[in-house]
Amino acid sequence: MRDVAIIGVGQTPVGEHWTTSIRHLAFEAASHALRDANIDKVDAVYVGNMLSGEITGQSHLGALVVDFMALNGVEALRIESACASGAAALRVGYLAIASELADLVLVLGVEKMTDTSGRQTTAMLAMAADAEYEVSQGISFVALNALLMRRYMHEYGWQRQDFANFAINAHANGMHNPNAMFHMKISPEAYAQAAMIAEPVGLLDASPVCDGAAAVVLAPARYAHILSPAPVKIRASAVGTMPLAVHDRKDPLTLESARLSAQRAYKQADVQPGDIDFFEMHDAFSIMAALSLEASGFADKGQGVRLALDGDIMLQGRLPTGTMGGLKARGHPVGATGIYQIVESVLQLRGLAGPNQVGNAHLGMAQNIGGSGATVITHILEAMDE
Amino acid sequence: MRDVAIIGVGQTPVGEHWTTSIRHLAFEAASHALRDANIDKVDAVYVGNMLSGEITGQSHLGALVVDFMALNGVEALRIESACASGAAALRVGYLAIASELADLVLVLGVEKMTDTSGRQTTAMLAMAADAEYEVSQGISFVALNALLMRRYMHEYGWQRQDFANFAINAHANGMHNPNAMFHMKISPEAYAQAAMIAEPVGLLDASPVCDGAAAVVLAPARYAHILSPAPVKIRASAVGTMPLAVHDRKDPLTLESARLSAQRAYKQADVQPGDIDFFEMHDAFSIMAALSLEASGFADKGQGVRLALDGDIMLQGRLPTGTMGGLKARGHPVGATGIYQIVESVLQLRGLAGPNQVGNAHLGMAQNIGGSGATVITHILEAMDE
Repeated sequence: MRDVAIIGVGQTPVGEHWTTSIRHLAFEAASHALRDANIDKVDAVYVGNMLSGEITGQSHLGALVVDFMALNGVEALRIESACASGAAALRVGYLAIASELADLVLVLGVEKMTDTSGRQTTAMLAMAADAEYEVSQGISFVALNALLMRRYMHEYGWQRQDFANFAINAHANGMHNPNAMFHMKISPEAYAQAAMIAEPVGLLDASPVCDGAAAVVLAPARYAHILSPAPVKIRASAVGTMPLAVHDRKDPLTLESARLSAQRAYKQADVQPGDIDFFEMHDAFSIMAALSLEASGFADKGQGVRLALDGDIMLQGRLPTGTMGGLKARGHPVGATGIYQIVESVLQLRGLAGPNQVGNAHLGMAQNIGGSGATVITHILEAMDE
Repeated sequence: MRDVAIIGVGQTPVGEHWTTSIRHLAFEAASHALRDANIDKVDAVYVGNMLSGEITGQSHLGALVVDFMALNGVEALRIESACASGAAALRVGYLAIASELADLVLVLGVEKMTDTSGRQTTAMLAMAADAEYEVSQGISFVALNALLMRRYMHEYGWQRQDFANFAINAHANGMHNPNAMFHMKISPEAYAQAAMIAEPVGLLDASPVCDGAAAVVLAPARYAHILSPAPVKIRASAVGTMPLAVHDRKDPLTLESARLSAQRAYKQADVQPGDIDFFEMHDAFSIMAALSLEASGFADKGQGVRLALDGDIMLQGRLPTGTMGGLKARGHPVGATGIYQIVESVLQLRGLAGPNQVGNAHLGMAQNIGGSGATVITHILEAMDE
């Protein structure tokens, strides 16, 4: 294989884009990325999206995006792995460049969740879980996370309030991200008083339903410096899986898929968890953040929540997470999230994260989680010095 | 890149599997393929599927299949390109092996269309077309093909009956395929008298709604003979696209995507159309068969239908097509079709096609079409001699 680099990034603001169709969202992010890479042609386009068919009645997004971008005739596919669809598309783009079958690839994540034509987004999101063994029992995605969070609190003796800093940190970081959905600080009191969605998951434990698109341009690493003043190398790309249904897992509080994905990524990049300068984690729910930190080797089992409590996850902490607001404050347009994580990581590695800049950011890790953990995709990125 | 070979194939019968869930269909085809390849582990699984989310409420098929196959933890993604989802998954598997990032890959196509929980399959299939510019006008997929067929008849002076041999040939071939949905010969009279679905598309111009799954196992070509007694090399893999909406195409009767895809495939394999011994074409509708033959260089523009009229497409003809029944008689479980085409091509190249064996089958081509042609994916396969 040959090494792969990111030479351009683009994104739309995350929010409720009632007057913008999914093709226009895609166009905006992809145009920014192509302009950032200073190119107007690519060999292939891979689109990460979870719910376009179900919510807006439009499948076949690969060809749709290529046509609307006037990238006439080029290869295009759509990739879906529930909420990990964005990173899944990046994985395929990575394979295409690594195989030498493509030289320039556009990878896009796009999701339009607010324009549901009367169908319920909650029901659509539940399709990431096991339809026959979980959803048929009436469980929603929030409820699944509530069961996990309650079990975690029971097993390890944490209180609900101990999770508060996940949301507080995300919202503090989102304040300075112009593309974040929420620009408001929240206090420990606000967290404590948040309305319950599915106890113990409160409104401030859950990422919002929203629209957005993000894109990256990939090229062979050996040409990256010719094409970009500040390329970023993909040091590792790894997918791990485990059963969709929580009851089928050996231990419901171990994200085995995240452990596999992270271990494979560390091995490929030949690094240790301690080498990672910041972690764009998948904080769709507070409990997912805690479990992801543990499975990825950043905390002992049952102790992921301590990184939030101790402030380790803050910008000045030991392992900054959600540096541009994370899923909680930037927003979680599901199929786009994995690419937002990559775009934000690239901004950090380029030193362009503004007030949110992590000091000496050289090696970043992004982890995108599908379902309640059935698919986990980890990428490790590194700034490429001249 | 390194060359890629197919070392195992498997399939379920195509039909109405009312009592079999999508995971069981997937399991059956994948198990056959793994057994045929004589392996029980793979590095990655790529699943082609179009409608599982919309029809059965289950997205996230990659992780689902891996879990149900007890392939614990391995990489898994779902790929969607409307009716070309099967070949799209093969494309990703091809990239994975070519990149040297995987050594053994399972590629699965699966679709369950008959178990619709009350939703209309016709409406679901229309999601392959342009939701905003075509489907919002009320057009169905059959109607789109009817418009194309009528225009074709008008432009080139063909009669409806001139298309009859596409269906007659498919049904004749399906007779001897135990996995085909239909085992009945049809006559020119039956074609003439078939009920109209959307004039001039009659019941015998359209492939059926059905369920099915097919799978292949991929490995590096250089190890293929160690792993399999009769491996098949993927000589080319190529994707072409064009606008989803028919009115956005320069010429609605030219499948520019198929032309691009076929030309790229010929170039990669360094062969000419005349070198192809048989063609598994995408005869979802008779008109698509004609347009595909023309765009792929097997007939002049407006003359694709002549290959049917003259019998060239029959088993003993110049270019046998749909050798195991094609989409019309084997059936068209949309996301699985692209893999059925590959499985059947491998059977031909192994000399195991029974009464349907094409003489001296050495080089085969399979073409999978998404939407009314927006995505076209072509693979060229070759028997690997010792």
